Amino acid sequence: MNLVDTITAISTPAGEGGISVIRISGKNAFAVCSQNFYKDKNRKKKSSIENEKTHTVHFGYFYKGNELIDEVLLTVFRNPNSYTGEDVIEISSHGGYLIAGKILSELIRKGARHAEPGEFTKRAFLNGRIDLSQAEAVADLIKAKTDSAHSSSIKQLEGSLSDFVGRTRQEIINIISLVELELDFAEEGLEFVKKDEVRIQTENLIKKINSIVSSYINGKVIREGVNLVIAGRPNSGKSSLFNYLLKTNRAIVSEVPGTTRDYIEESIIINGILFNLTDTAGLRVSGDLIESEGIRRSYKKINDADLILYLIDSSDTPENIREDYDYFSKTFDTDKSLFFYSKNDLARKKIPCKENCISLLDDDSIENLKNEMISKISSGKILSSADGIIITNLRHKICLENVVTALSEAKVTLDRKMSGEFISVDLRNALNYLGEITGEVTNDDILNNIFRNFCIGK
Amino acid sequence: MNLVDTITAISTPAGEGGISVIRISGKNAFAVCSQNFYKDKNRKKKSSIENEKTHTVHFGYFYKGNELIDEVLLTVFRNPNSYTGEDVIEISSHGGYLIAGKILSELIRKGARHAEPGEFTKRAFLNGRIDLSQAEAVADLIKAKTDSAHSSSIKQLEGSLSDFVGRTRQEIINIISLVELELDFAEEGLEFVKKDEVRIQTENLIKKINSIVSSYINGKVIREGVNLVIAGRPNSGKSSLFNYLLKTNRAIVSEVPGTTRDYIEESIIINGILFNLTDTAGLRVSGDLIESEGIRRSYKKINDADLILYLIDSSDTPENIREDYDYFSKTFDTDKSLFFYSKNDLARKKIPCKENCISLLDDDSIENLKNEMISKISSGKILSSADGIIITNLRHKICLENVVTALSEAKVTLDRKMSGEFISVDLRNALNYLGEITGEVTNDDILNNIFRNFCIGK
Repeated sequence: MNLVDTITAISTPAGEGGISVIRISGKNAFAVCSQNFYKDKNRKKKSSIENEKTHTVHFGYFYKGNELIDEVLLTVFRNPNSYTGEDVIEISSHGGYLIAGKILSELIRKGARHAEPGEFTKRAFLNGRIDLSQAEAVADLIKAKTDSAHSSSIKQLEGSLSDFVGRTRQEIINIISLVELELDFAEEGLEFVKKDEVRIQTENLIKKINSIVSSYINGKVIREGVNLVIAGRPNSGKSSLFNYLLKTNRAIVSEVPGTTRDYIEESIIINGILFNLTDTAGLRVSGDLIESEGIRRSYKKINDADLILYLIDSSDTPENIREDYDYFSKTFDTDKSLFFYSKNDLARKKIPCKENCISLLDDDSIENLKNEMISKISSGKILSSADGIIITNLRHKICLENVVTALSEAKVTLDRKMSGEFISVDLRNALNYLGEITGEVTNDDILNNIFRNFCIGK
Repeated sequence: MNLVDTITAISTPAGEGGISVIRISGKNAFAVCSQNFYKDKNRKKKSSIENEKTHTVHFGYFYKGNELIDEVLLTVFRNPNSYTGEDVIEISSHGGYLIAGKILSELIRKGARHAEPGEFTKRAFLNGRIDLSQAEAVADLIKAKTDSAHSSSIKQLEGSLSDFVGRTRQEIINIISLVELELDFAEEGLEFVKKDEVRIQTENLIKKINSIVSSYINGKVIREGVNLVIAGRPNSGKSSLFNYLLKTNRAIVSEVPGTTRDYIEESIIINGILFNLTDTAGLRVSGDLIESEGIRRSYKKINDADLILYLIDSSDTPENIREDYDYFSKTFDTDKSLFFYSKNDLARKKIPCKENCISLLDDDSIENLKNEMISKISSGKILSSADGIIITNLRHKICLENVVTALSEAKVTLDRKMSGEFISVDLRNALNYLGEITGEVTNDDILNNIFRNFCIGK
């Protein structure tokens, strides 16, 4: 990455709002903005942003040639006291669809480059303002939709994971010292006592890291939510349940089987857990081309789901109900699916609603359904690891697993009574994997992968 | 309105973005924010925002009790040097779904009130920072989707309409002086010479204001765009044209008549004019309940349209084409409708594409269609009035029409040789209506109506 050029992007979401913010960072940030910004409407006072103090705000007029684009507020941050660690300007304009875009293209015309997603945060990382796990926390923080997601990512931004990595690094370095100090003095390798100590310390570390790795299942739920697909035959009440859970009339509901064609996606939070609900076209062989396309998409959604909620119409004939249940139990993996009898109010033979059955006229039955959904997800509890740290990021999980593998190899090397140098190599591998989490050890591929997931303007 | 209480709102659009801005304005803005904002993470340094200079930015931590909500930048604006003219704080937090909401509810818990739509701008008006037509320009600026809309509203914000009102006010006052000065000296009413002068000046003023009133037709197009509904029988190519114009596959297209049920709305800009396109369900008598509901909604959309584009399938039989054309010409007002023969590439008898006919395989035919659409709208030209002012707002148009009515009444009074006092009353009425535009004369209903259309946070 070229750290020398000056980047710019709109940092506020698209859409109608009171304020838009355009950010510029880099060596020429002040010079680029000075060309279009005037403190008075008559453009007599050319603004000399270069001379303004850091952390000050200036009212003025942003021009494109002779055309006034907007009245703006311009905030100056001088390096290194800015988000990126470089000279930064934030231009706050009226919100809406057009203005920020006009300002942005004018800044680009004057020599700034449009920032890539996450590039401001990437610069903050490369300039040593934050480490890599903190940079990732920024992206997670912005995407957080539940309190638990917010709380885990703000902790990570504040350095909880970085601190853990730092402590673990120190422990590995201590073990390496034990091993290597011994190497300097004893030609024959490690003493018996030291060996035991190294083994015990390594085992403890593996145990601790594993407990943190296992927090990832919960972490994923916290960060991304559960992808829940509502499936079933046509007219089994999927769209009605979908609407009921969302408390809106999002999906068109009719008595005609095959009403839903395109799948519909919406999110809700149940007991603090985010569920990404998908309502799908009912599963059947259909002669209708559009419906068939919908059904094809239903199967695709079912394949990608974390959890499938299969509805069986309990108002149907006993034969059909049995057949449908057979289809369900043959087709779906019980680990990631639930079935419920729907429309119990219309059923020929009412089923006590404690037993996998719902009616939209019976709130308790829906509460029961929600509880079943929750308890299907990682035993229904959001657990944190012993250290209070939750891993929400697959990359961190993989790094930590690699650390564990390297430590386990060190143990094997030790047990095979191989030379201390070999143990040391394994332990240094563990250090490297650990460094990948915070970005002390990194490469372009890792960085590109991480910052690709950011929004533009952050 | 209570100008004493302190108001707060999120001023950036909802959605994923790098930055959110929360605004607080009012007497207690500093006190409210001080309770949750710390300059250090350990919360030792209680921030004394009261002592900070205006237009300065401060990095710190926003807490809710012991929970860290976010790292934020806090900008201080001291009255009267702020958007509203009051003490204002802007808190800039990480973007996304949750954080700004958490900060907002914490500020409300600490004594601020959630701002109504446009309430910050309303305070700017009530505190004399801007006049009413400028306040309205702010809302228009945010909603502007085309360059012409942006340019007309920024001019209005900069005071072009206010200046016109000011000049016109002065001219009316001059006429009043002529009339009233005369009254003081002449018992018998106005002299003949003066009468002529009053008449000429009044007539000129009426002419000038009328020319500005007539810019409103264009103004409405500039501000809101043209609502264009694509209508026609099922399978006449409406959704294909819709997608083609949008350059996306927004609407599901199939050979099955009745594919589109719910109408779909999207906007495009053609030659600088915003068209709000609506693709509708094909018009026919349908036995399908869902389709019928769609058709019912089509007719409603057609009724509300500024312009209807009716497609006739030219690949159909000659009888059907004739019948469809008859239906079109009997049903639709030629002033606000266009018809085109679609699918000319499939037509039995190809039609030269200059003659109301399109084929998606023939770019020229679509260009021709676009030109016809443009020229149907106010003769295809966006005209400004003699003064370069365009009225884009119905309220301003009505005020100006009232001014014209009052001036015309003054003329009638003059012609009837009634006493100067009566003429003066008419002229003062005109002044009043003029004052409504800039808000010198106003009432709660007018204000509520205006600010109701703002977004929250502005």
